[in-house]
Amino acid sequence: MNTNRQWLLAKRPHGLVGEENFEYAENPIPEPGEGEVLVRNLYLSFDPTQRGWMEDRESYLPPVQLGEPMRAGSIGQVTASNNPDFAVGDMVQTTGGWQDFVVVAPGQGVMGLNKIPDGIAPDMMLSVLGVTGLTAYFGLLDLGEPKAGETVLVSGAAGATGSVAGQIAKLKGCHVVGIAGGPEKCAWLKAEAGFDEVIDYKNEDVDARIAETCPNKVDVFFDNVGGDILEAALNHINMRARVVLCGGISGYNATAPIPGPTNLMNLVIMRARMEGFIVIDYMDRAGEAITELLGWIQSGQLKYQVDVQEGFENIPNTLSRLFTGQNLGKQLLKIADPA
Amino acid sequence: MNTNRQWLLAKRPHGLVGEENFEYAENPIPEPGEGEVLVRNLYLSFDPTQRGWMEDRESYLPPVQLGEPMRAGSIGQVTASNNPDFAVGDMVQTTGGWQDFVVVAPGQGVMGLNKIPDGIAPDMMLSVLGVTGLTAYFGLLDLGEPKAGETVLVSGAAGATGSVAGQIAKLKGCHVVGIAGGPEKCAWLKAEAGFDEVIDYKNEDVDARIAETCPNKVDVFFDNVGGDILEAALNHINMRARVVLCGGISGYNATAPIPGPTNLMNLVIMRARMEGFIVIDYMDRAGEAITELLGWIQSGQLKYQVDVQEGFENIPNTLSRLFTGQNLGKQLLKIADPA
Repeated sequence: MNTNRQWLLAKRPHGLVGEENFEYAENPIPEPGEGEVLVRNLYLSFDPTQRGWMEDRESYLPPVQLGEPMRAGSIGQVTASNNPDFAVGDMVQTTGGWQDFVVVAPGQGVMGLNKIPDGIAPDMMLSVLGVTGLTAYFGLLDLGEPKAGETVLVSGAAGATGSVAGQIAKLKGCHVVGIAGGPEKCAWLKAEAGFDEVIDYKNEDVDARIAETCPNKVDVFFDNVGGDILEAALNHINMRARVVLCGGISGYNATAPIPGPTNLMNLVIMRARMEGFIVIDYMDRAGEAITELLGWIQSGQLKYQVDVQEGFENIPNTLSRLFTGQNLGKQLLKIADPA
Repeated sequence: MNTNRQWLLAKRPHGLVGEENFEYAENPIPEPGEGEVLVRNLYLSFDPTQRGWMEDRESYLPPVQLGEPMRAGSIGQVTASNNPDFAVGDMVQTTGGWQDFVVVAPGQGVMGLNKIPDGIAPDMMLSVLGVTGLTAYFGLLDLGEPKAGETVLVSGAAGATGSVAGQIAKLKGCHVVGIAGGPEKCAWLKAEAGFDEVIDYKNEDVDARIAETCPNKVDVFFDNVGGDILEAALNHINMRARVVLCGGISGYNATAPIPGPTNLMNLVIMRARMEGFIVIDYMDRAGEAITELLGWIQSGQLKYQVDVQEGFENIPNTLSRLFTGQNLGKQLLKIADPA
């Protein structure tokens, strides 16, 4: 391979993101400078937050610029190295972007450059042990502070983050209720992930079902969705409830601002807290989380699903899957196998 | 006086509360039972939260029932006592309601029954040392956690709670900006209460003015208003900001739910917290707050305004003043002087 295939951001999206927002390009493979390594991307991570990176506004990261490769987390393999800490053939996690090759050095990009421990498969590293798993871990435990016997409600529950958050809540002795879209996702949550109750927002009255499935009200709401789902949950919060704002996927592709919940005064009446967070603030504690998550996986107490698409040409459409709810578990795309 | 004049809740309000929601009545003066005292109400407190008590829905207190005297905080004087801790002539604070006389015992009602320390005037006890002052104290300090050099933004800033919250923030070394309605209130906030900057929401673009007056962004937003003001403030929060939800007066008289802020995702991007509280949870620490507030008043560091209406017949219309913004400072009504 002599070229670096890329998908560049070509047009900022208005509404649902699609292939038309990107442009295919072929460029020379870059050369690593002093201290840098050249990484071949093998797996790309797809995350709802990427939609925000495409907007031309300040956020927790600068926007992706037009003409740049789309930013994305990735697993790859070192193919050339000017850094003594990395050898050709090493499997690494970085922010490789939508391209075959990236030049990086430790500390660069959102995720830096980190070797993957032996025995950890790329799909596990990019999902339950990656950003989405760590988001679930720190968001639920640090902000949600679930206590045994409490009720934890999770939206986007079949997603890569929500499913892990709910299972950690179960491990902490909570009554766990998940909100997800469609019978297939709901069935997986009950049968495999061990949620106590599930609510199919596509086919059920979410507000009424929260009342039914949370008879002691909601102590922790782990929210990935926002909008109407957040409003319904706020109707049922308990005294001193914690609302963990992880994301708001319901609004990411909106063409106009969507109204917020009309019932924020319930936070006052119930002396409740709503708090947002970004997992990159917790990266110095990633080791602690990965160790515990891996233990739960190995003991069979933590299940995860990955949805692995294939083919470089399918990259833009794979991002859209997140927003149409097509993905079952963590959305990945495999570009190539390791050498 | 042989009768107990009362204003009873006659009709639950839809929209702005007014005299038509109440009915005047005269009843016999009640007799205190074992351990109880008879109190003659001298001053009534008017608080935005009373509007919520008139709704037929569960909240942090049960609704006032139709045909009952309207619930209200009050200062009164003991006129008969079957309780050895209270003597005829004692000045007391209680939840006397909209009537001349009430029978109470310690521990009853929202505020219990407490003697007023010597030398504290009734209007001070019902304002800066009362529920509104304590709300400002605990909300700002316990939830807002202001640090010297931070920026504190207060809505409803000329109100009984907001004006105290802002002045406490000044005492803690913060840059303090108040949002209030009209030039008279804004002038008082700058000249008397020592706010650094004021925003007149009736005559200025709140969002643009927050940007101007809070060049380092908003670390603490103490919100009494909700709605559009909350949305504007959320546009300018700093990293790890604390939004203290004290009230939402913009929605109290709405006939339909008003949309919440469209920008709650800013809580995620800025890792910020929004938290509600009710001052009655802090009553066991009231002494600590009153001691500190009184010290600041006596040293001239804390100013307060009271707006004292008179006349039993004016009670219902005095409540409406809160929602039309007519009151300057804490709204009270004097029924009678002490004997």
